[in-house]
Formats: sequence, structure tokens, C-alpha cells
Amino acid sequence: MSRFFSPKYSSLKPYTPGEQPKEMQYIKLNTNESPFPPSGKAQEAAAKAAASLQLYSDPTCKMTTHALAKTLDVDPDEVLLTNGSDEILNFAFMAFCDDHTPAAFADITYGFYSVFAQINNLPYKIIPLKEDFTIDTGDYFGLNSTIFIANPNAPTGIALSRDQIEEILQKNPNNVVVIDEAYVDFGGESCVPLIKKYDNLLVTQTFSKSRSMAGARLGFGVGCKALIADLNAIKYSTNPYNVNSMTLAAGYGTLCDPDYTAANCKTIIENREKTAAELKKLGFEMTNSKTNFLFAKHPDLDGEALYLELKRRGILVRHFNTPRISSYNRITVGTREQMQTLIQTIQAILEEQA
Amino acid sequence: MSRFFSPKYSSLKPYTPGEQPKEMQYIKLNTNESPFPPSGKAQEAAAKAAASLQLYSDPTCKMTTHALAKTLDVDPDEVLLTNGSDEILNFAFMAFCDDHTPAAFADITYGFYSVFAQINNLPYKIIPLKEDFTIDTGDYFGLNSTIFIANPNAPTGIALSRDQIEEILQKNPNNVVVIDEAYVDFGGESCVPLIKKYDNLLVTQTFSKSRSMAGARLGFGVGCKALIADLNAIKYSTNPYNVNSMTLAAGYGTLCDPDYTAANCKTIIENREKTAAELKKLGFEMTNSKTNFLFAKHPDLDGEALYLELKRRGILVRHFNTPRISSYNRITVGTREQMQTLIQTIQAILEEQA
Repeated sequence: MSRFFSPKYSSLKPYTPGEQPKEMQYIKLNTNESPFPPSGKAQEAAAKAAASLQLYSDPTCKMTTHALAKTLDVDPDEVLLTNGSDEILNFAFMAFCDDHTPAAFADITYGFYSVFAQINNLPYKIIPLKEDFTIDTGDYFGLNSTIFIANPNAPTGIALSRDQIEEILQKNPNNVVVIDEAYVDFGGESCVPLIKKYDNLLVTQTFSKSRSMAGARLGFGVGCKALIADLNAIKYSTNPYNVNSMTLAAGYGTLCDPDYTAANCKTIIENREKTAAELKKLGFEMTNSKTNFLFAKHPDLDGEALYLELKRRGILVRHFNTPRISSYNRITVGTREQMQTLIQTIQAILEEQA
Repeated sequence: MSRFFSPKYSSLKPYTPGEQPKEMQYIKLNTNESPFPPSGKAQEAAAKAAASLQLYSDPTCKMTTHALAKTLDVDPDEVLLTNGSDEILNFAFMAFCDDHTPAAFADITYGFYSVFAQINNLPYKIIPLKEDFTIDTGDYFGLNSTIFIANPNAPTGIALSRDQIEEILQKNPNNVVVIDEAYVDFGGESCVPLIKKYDNLLVTQTFSKSRSMAGARLGFGVGCKALIADLNAIKYSTNPYNVNSMTLAAGYGTLCDPDYTAANCKTIIENREKTAAELKKLGFEMTNSKTNFLFAKHPDLDGEALYLELKRRGILVRHFNTPRISSYNRITVGTREQMQTLIQTIQAILEEQA
């Protein structure tokens, strides 16, 4: 830290992304990436866009926004594309929270929410999950806060139903409720259809997981026209050309290839269910994941020790050294072959330990 | 604006990017883009990166950062890559300004500085340029502010020498001085070598102009290790994967092709000087531009009227309807052919008017 760094950040703890080691080839099950390459249409469109990089990207992101709006069955001015969904989430913290309206979110959820609150100097309330990591929706009624709910939640994988979210929306008519649907395509129920009914709902999603575009950075928010206009004011006050033209093209290509995305999601869901059954046979306990990862612990294995042993053997999973969940590991669902290697490796670790 | 938008933004005026009309094919001389495509090496590298988008981009941007550091003759931890230079500028406002340390910048300069100050709720001082649009360096001595100077300046194109910047650095030892060198490759004197001597200097640059990568969004900051660490704390608290993998690859490819960049800059400088001479013959007055644009006014032509008339005839330039400069237009230097069309079109306008 330099002597010039503003003291307002003295207690800031930046987010730690999942490790991306380059020193050896791992089976990478630690950052919830897709094991499948992006759509061929995305690749072609991005390569074509690379030839015209001398021109600025379209700040209105018109073509991709229109295609996305059509896919979601909403109007184009109900959608805002961003540089990954982290950007739209940060915009929502900036736009809808202040000293009078704190943020509110679960104790166990996407670790970035508390960082967004801190970087923007915002007050926030932590709402503990129940013992079994589910949400008691009643805890979110009349909070007088801007509410952030990852649905399905991370790293637990547990989903609320659309009806449950709707009840939270109804019980907070004067506050924005942000539903972060990064993982919704793997078995969750999207709240996008509710934006026509609730002017206090912002849904965020990403092209990083189900659409195999983590490296392109493309996220978006969906909400009523007025909410999107607010978020656009933030965008045009921080980075008007926030999404580059190759990513816009790749996003458009992906939207033109919905069957590919759907098939990949189906495969991931099948692999998840098979892997969950196999892990159960090995004695693991797991949450009911509706995502592309499993959240698992074993009565005879320390969470961190398992993470380290798997890493030593060439498999990366994500371990959070934080209260309530340090006995767990979050394991991304990869290809069937990757999952078989994982199961065999864990089996060997358990046998050596016995 | 929705009923949920925080009142802290009630007086926020977002930045207005240069128009990007799609309804017809213009000669686009309004956003200071390069008329030349990106390096073939950039295009190839980006296309290759598009095939692996399912994986997150490297949050440390290691490969491109190292290549850039080598080009600049600094250490890798003295460089931070961002999603365009707007992002590094916003980070600098966030990191180095607060209620006790206002921002300070010229009245006529990059219009985004005041927006960055507003979006971050920061106090700021406006330092008027002299009558001839040059900077009186004495106005910047002992300001007790974080200073932002575009050098060369936009939209005037006028440059300070490195010695003049050094004096400003010396007279503000306890404040950060940010030198925004977006246009430095067209004849300015870069202050990058000074970062080894001054711990209060941050230099920002972009791949958008001289490197033909506006659509890729790649900017960067160069400063002492401690300043870069501060800016990294901001990055990891807002968007750790801020630069996508295609842009990182394109940036690396461009850095591997320095002769291409140098040749394009040389051509632009030649076209600028020829165009300036021709405009002078037509009666225009101009500042001494060291950039890829000219800032010009004509005694017999209203600034806005000329902008509108050129647009009607298929040529876009940028007009700022703001005090002191509304009689001027900012004209990007394009290819020789584009500049000839511009001159002929202005000649015709002048003749019709006579």
C-alpha cells in the first residue's frame, strides 16, 4: 500500500479469485468453468470481430442486447450487458445502496457481495443461512435493505423456487431485490419472467458458466426499464465501452446456437447426478445442488486436507477456509472422464487412509 | 430514473461517448480511432484465444503484462492492465482522492474526469487553461490535490514537455499526479521513465489509438510498485477478471509487432501535418497538435454548423457544445484519402457559403 492510498479503504479485503496455477496441467474443478469449448459460432464471430478492432465497440451493445432480449422474451431496454456479471453486481451495489439503504445478503454466499459493499463504503447486513444451508425466506421480509440472493446459491448449490423469491419481492416493495442467477441454467428456476410484474426485481446472469464464455467476460442484468436506466447511468459514468467487440460478437454467436448450450447443460446435470451418487457411495454428504458444482464433505476427511491431497494428485477443487463451511469442498462438475478420475482419486485417498 | 436510484447521484451527468451511427457509412473522424486495422499478430492471437473461452482469463494478465513491461523498460509489478484506460483512470480517482484530497484538472480536457469525480462523490478543483489553451504549470504547484493531466491534452492536442511535468511532480511531493498519455505516441514525450524517480507519478496509456485496438478495450497504468498495488486492490475489489482473454492475446500480439505500430504512427503524423497545412490554407486556426487529431476553427464558420454540414455530407467530426471551445471541431486524422475527402468537402462548403 502506498502512502497515497485513501484511508477509506483501510479495512478493505479484496476478493480472492480461485487459483489459476500455470506450473502444471491440473484437472480444473475449482472455478465452475464449463468443460466444453464455446460454440463454434461464437468462435467464428469473435475471430471476425478481431479484424476490426481499430473501431470502438458499440457502447449500446445493440445487436447482442437485442438477440439476448429476444431469447429472454423481454424488451431490449430491460437488459444491460456488462464486463462479466461482477460488473452488473457492482453497478447494483452502487445504484441501489447508500447510507440509508444498506445491502443485505447471506453469511454463506458469493464472497464478492461483502467486497462490493466495502469498496463502495456501504453498510450491509448479514443474514445467516439455516443450519442446513437453506434460506428461511421469512428472514428477508421487510428488510429495508437492497437484497442480494444468489439463486441457486454458491457455494452451497441450493436453490429457492420462483414462488419463494416472489414472496420476498412482495414483502420488500420499496427495495430492490437482486437475484444473481449465475448458475440457474443447471436446474434452477429463473425469475426473469417476474421482471414484468415487479419493478423492484433485478436478475443478473452470466455467459461464463452454461455458455462456456468465462474468458470472454459477459454478464447482464434484466429488470424493468427504469432500473436498467439507472444502471446505464452508472455504466456511462464509469466505462461506456465496457464490453469489447470480440466478446459482443461471441455472445451473439452463442445466442444463435441455443441447442449447443442446452445440450451442454444437460450433460453437466447428468454428470452432476452421477457424480453425486458415486460420492454418496464413498460416504460424502452433499447439499442438493442445482448448479454445475457439488458442495461435499466427508466424515473422515478434513476439508482442507482433502483439497490439498487432491491438488497434490493433479485435481483442483475449491476450499473456503471460512466459518461453517471449512469441512466442505466445492467441486465443479466437468466431463464424465474428469469426474471418473476424481472419484478414483478420492477412492484411493480413502483407501490409503483406512 | 427509478424510485430506487440512490439520491447521491441526483446531479450525476454521465459521459456522452462520440456518436456511433449505424444508419449510413460515414468517414468517421470523431472518436480518434486509428484508420488502420490491428496487427495481423493481434488478430491471429485473439482468434486462437476465442477457442478456449470456457476458461477464465488470467486475472494477473501475466503474459501480456510482462511483454508490456519489457516494452516500457519497467518491472511487471509497475504495470496494471485494465478494461480500457477509462478503467485505470476511474481506479485512480477511487484510490487517490477522497474528502480530504480532491481531484484537480483543467477546465478543457478529457470530459470524463469530472464524471469520475462525480460518480465517486469526490470534490474536485477546475484549473482553467490559459487563453491559448496551454497549461500554466505554475497553476499546478502545491495543489494538495490528486492531479489529472491529459498529455497531450484532449481535445486541444497540446503537449507539455517531460521537464514541465517533472516540475509539477516536484512541486506536489505528497500528492499523486496522473499523466494520461492516451495520445502520446503521436509526438508527445512520455513520462514513463520518470516512474523510477517519482513515487507520486502514475502514467496511463491505451491500446485504443496508436495500437488500433479501441474495440478490444485495453488500457494500463505505470507507476511505482506501491501505487500499482493500491490500484490492484481496487481491481480485485471490483472486477478481478477485468480483461478478457481475447483482448489479452490481442495485446500480446500487438506488442510482438512494434514496427507495425511505429509505421502507423509515422503515417498519422505525416497526414496530420499535411492536413493542418491544407486547413490553414483554407483559413482555419489550429492548436499545435501532438495527437492523432486536429482542433480547428474557422473565422467564417460556426463550429456546430460545420459539424452538422460535414455530417450531412457523410463526414463525422466531434463538436463539443461547451464554453470556450464551441467554435472548434476535433477532427481525427485518418488515411490520406480520408483527409483529402475532408479537405475537398470543407472547400466546397466554404465556396457555397461565399
